[in-house]
Amino acid sequence: MDRVKRNERLAVMMRILTESPNRIFTLGVFCEMFGAAKSTMSEDIDILRKVIDQFSMGQLETVTGAAGGVRYRPFVPQEKAYQYVKQLADLLSSPGRVLPGGFIYMADILAMPDLMQNMGMVIASQYYKSEPDFVLTMETKGIPVALMTAKALGVPMVIVRRDSKVYEGPAVNINYLSGSGARVETMSLSKRAVSEGQRALIVDDFMRAGGTARGMVDMMKEFSVTVAGVCVLVATKTPERKRLDGIRSLLVVESMDELNGSAQIAPANWLQ
Amino acid sequence: MDRVKRNERLAVMMRILTESPNRIFTLGVFCEMFGAAKSTMSEDIDILRKVIDQFSMGQLETVTGAAGGVRYRPFVPQEKAYQYVKQLADLLSSPGRVLPGGFIYMADILAMPDLMQNMGMVIASQYYKSEPDFVLTMETKGIPVALMTAKALGVPMVIVRRDSKVYEGPAVNINYLSGSGARVETMSLSKRAVSEGQRALIVDDFMRAGGTARGMVDMMKEFSVTVAGVCVLVATKTPERKRLDGIRSLLVVESMDELNGSAQIAPANWLQ
Repeated sequence: MDRVKRNERLAVMMRILTESPNRIFTLGVFCEMFGAAKSTMSEDIDILRKVIDQFSMGQLETVTGAAGGVRYRPFVPQEKAYQYVKQLADLLSSPGRVLPGGFIYMADILAMPDLMQNMGMVIASQYYKSEPDFVLTMETKGIPVALMTAKALGVPMVIVRRDSKVYEGPAVNINYLSGSGARVETMSLSKRAVSEGQRALIVDDFMRAGGTARGMVDMMKEFSVTVAGVCVLVATKTPERKRLDGIRSLLVVESMDELNGSAQIAPANWLQ
Repeated sequence: MDRVKRNERLAVMMRILTESPNRIFTLGVFCEMFGAAKSTMSEDIDILRKVIDQFSMGQLETVTGAAGGVRYRPFVPQEKAYQYVKQLADLLSSPGRVLPGGFIYMADILAMPDLMQNMGMVIASQYYKSEPDFVLTMETKGIPVALMTAKALGVPMVIVRRDSKVYEGPAVNINYLSGSGARVETMSLSKRAVSEGQRALIVDDFMRAGGTARGMVDMMKEFSVTVAGVCVLVATKTPERKRLDGIRSLLVVESMDELNGSAQIAPANWLQ
């Protein structure tokens, strides 16, 4: 291969680093890839760090120590996070989304890859410090945002099922109070899915009273896993007191007009 | 802002283009972003195209016409696709994954973001020409690979549910033959989810007899949607005759040893 110019090296490194967020790459990997000296690569990294910062694309960090190197985090600054979340709020507040019974149709929006990638980066930005080992969600609608959060954190996702499946092996089943507490439901998690002593970040799409999230927290206790945080995309304003403390939500359902079928959904206070 | 150097422009453009695969960006967008002339941007694009090709990172294409511009596709060349799929095959073939009844535990691997992103790019590479409008999958385990395929294609994902939900509004329900044909099951899709005349790419995680995929094809008929392709991650070798023709699978279960709990899973012939 011809010698790769700095121009080209920077573009290739940008792709490699941003494709695997939160993973540490040693300088040696890049030295070998480009046949360049460590000092040259250090200069490249400095240029990348500056430009990533300048264009609000996240953070490129140098990690020291034996397992040291450089890692990219798609850290979303407050102002940009607000823009991303506001965009989602406007989509969800569009007329005709409120269904009989006061439910909001969100399935289409929750499965849009680019939007959910943005949300995943916003959520991950809040939890890099908590160093979760995996992202936990309950099937089904929260899977895309949970997956994109896991992607941004560089960790696996784990899905809690509504019932145990033959292809998941031995499982732990627990009961939890759903919705207003009127129904007792079951959730199931394969015994192989997580290990004792790990740290879980719980991510879900929607929270009314918090029963499902509370169930996931209880499930983690059964596995001796620490909950590093609980984050939902959308929470209702009422009931104000959820079944769980310390929940972060990106969006809040401020009010609902069943008659004309629209909900007022806005970015949560902490984003403003 | 200071004038942005070519070095830096190339890195930023690489990030923007690869973050939104298959989306067309006009040169004007970049001219404005960097305060540079069109001729300069054209040179930048030429350098990026060359380096993306040289490092087998996909394709940067110039699209002519009124809605023209430049778009990045994470097209995976055959050799690299084989490597990605082989890596997955080895993981799935590791001992202890075969459960009683001959089921294979795959839930952990199917929810790994980086692996599923690679699979999504491999699948998308096969279907850019088919120009699907969305990726259809059936809950639950196939959602990550379907989402990553949709991401690489730059289209939304649509999830078929096992039963109709209050928060999905009016829905079409159909019955289908599951597994060996012994059971009749139901699938449900919200009437708002897709529109007449669209093109669907069906993506799922596992296929034995093809009943679920066949059900999704039948569902698309109900919506007057054309099926642009059917692709599954893993298919069993038997029954050789599936309930549906024209299915592509990335991996094939060659054989299974229930006694020592391991399956032999290999990349499909077309990848070799």
